[in-house]
Amino acid sequence: MSQDPLAAAEVAIVGLGLMGASLGYDLRGHCRRVIGVARRQEAADAALAAGCVDVAATDALAAVAAADLVILATPARVLLRQIETLGPRLRRGGVLLDLGSTKAAICQALDALPPHVQAIGGHPMCGKEQAGLDAAEAGLYRGCTFVLCPRPSAGPEALALALALIRRIEARPLLLDPDQHDRLVASISHLPYLAACALVGQALTVATEAPAVWELAAGSFRDGTRVAASDVTMLLDILLTNQRAVLAALDGYEMHLRRLRQLLAQGDEPALRQLLTEMAQARHAWARARAAHATAGSSDRAG
Amino acid sequence: MSQDPLAAAEVAIVGLGLMGASLGYDLRGHCRRVIGVARRQEAADAALAAGCVDVAATDALAAVAAADLVILATPARVLLRQIETLGPRLRRGGVLLDLGSTKAAICQALDALPPHVQAIGGHPMCGKEQAGLDAAEAGLYRGCTFVLCPRPSAGPEALALALALIRRIEARPLLLDPDQHDRLVASISHLPYLAACALVGQALTVATEAPAVWELAAGSFRDGTRVAASDVTMLLDILLTNQRAVLAALDGYEMHLRRLRQLLAQGDEPALRQLLTEMAQARHAWARARAAHATAGSSDRAG
Repeated sequence: MSQDPLAAAEVAIVGLGLMGASLGYDLRGHCRRVIGVARRQEAADAALAAGCVDVAATDALAAVAAADLVILATPARVLLRQIETLGPRLRRGGVLLDLGSTKAAICQALDALPPHVQAIGGHPMCGKEQAGLDAAEAGLYRGCTFVLCPRPSAGPEALALALALIRRIEARPLLLDPDQHDRLVASISHLPYLAACALVGQALTVATEAPAVWELAAGSFRDGTRVAASDVTMLLDILLTNQRAVLAALDGYEMHLRRLRQLLAQGDEPALRQLLTEMAQARHAWARARAAHATAGSSDRAG
Repeated sequence: MSQDPLAAAEVAIVGLGLMGASLGYDLRGHCRRVIGVARRQEAADAALAAGCVDVAATDALAAVAAADLVILATPARVLLRQIETLGPRLRRGGVLLDLGSTKAAICQALDALPPHVQAIGGHPMCGKEQAGLDAAEAGLYRGCTFVLCPRPSAGPEALALALALIRRIEARPLLLDPDQHDRLVASISHLPYLAACALVGQALTVATEAPAVWELAAGSFRDGTRVAASDVTMLLDILLTNQRAVLAALDGYEMHLRRLRQLLAQGDEPALRQLLTEMAQARHAWARARAAHATAGSSDRAG
């Protein structure tokens, strides 16, 4: 095996939307070959024309059988079907990595594959509101946290290959248990989506009697509701494959809202100030840590 | 009176933080004189040095007595005191405009002033997380909605003067009743703040057992919690002077959250899809309308 296990690998990317196509841009020229797989011929042609893959195909079975590393970059529930249909067709020792936004159900499906496949669950924490090939870009993954949930079937070389890929796209690997991943993203990613949707819902309620409310919407509404404009099908996939954890996160969220409501109703200014200050400080601390990561990342790249 | 009633006016701005100082930058040279009033001499000196005022003073009573237009740009609860202490000192016919974020309590105070003062409640819907003179900038108000609540004491010339000011800073005037203003901003501005704080609270709860949650925080957390980092003292002022409306907005918000929770718990995909699609479409529609406003604004400016 060469020093960079990625360099010698034939990589198949199944699904050429935002995530798959962006990955293709970053990997081309840094592995033996990037084979892109789309369901429709026009999508395959478009990906080839855009330059995010070396070869584009619609025959997923053939592409998967030939690859050293197969990356499934389709929505969560499509993924579950593809793991079942495509997974067993990998060559002996082939590495299967998915990019699904939830991990427990997917890892369960990965664990049911025949033992000749080395399976790793993955979740890169990046994206955009826009979906599809046109929104794809090189560098999309730069600086993002890339969660890995290696399955028992995956040996050290398989993990090394996944880590080499993460290094290449300049993301930061984080190994997590699938259940813990789902519990954490429920609060930090899926909950903010529902919170944003409910803010839009409340504005809609108010607007039925006072359309002027839209004129008053400024920065806090704009940012607080940005993700409410996300692709509904993708989010439904996420919510429905992470139902239990999202419900628990909603319960925790409502507890915090009720505490804030109670202090405001009581006019308890000192306690309200303390709570709001604690939250403002936590938000500042997170932003600082994130900025420090970004700086460390760019000096890594320079070095 | 000249064609532009602003050109001949002596304007006093009380409070030289983000809002007051930014207004000074935009007004200087377009009215007779901008007198800036700060509580501390160093703040007055700094404002003069920064160039956002023609004259800087610490004697609010003298500045207010000399001005044609007095603009109070201090936090909501300071404002309530200043209306009482400074308001009666305006010259006969002098116009008093405040920039407070809530309007019912403030307009009540304005209505208690002696009749020789022409009072107008105001609320420009713009700002930043950063506060203070250093964050101030020309053009801060450009394109924003500027709510006016003219009081019975304000004649047509007073309103014309306020509208001339709004035109000069390239904002868009919106006349509203104070109670309606407070009810609307409770849902579209104060609620998003509390929703963001509760998101941070939920992340803090999860982090006590799993600090890795901060590594997973990405775009939806970043945007959904941005305003949680706002100045707590300013937000407390706002929440406590708009308590009843904010509590009602919280109740409405929790109803929307409970509806989302129920559909997710039931796994009712069609109903959940319909609700989320409705919210995504409303968010898109708002963003489109906002963009259209911005475009109209720039062609106005070009013309």
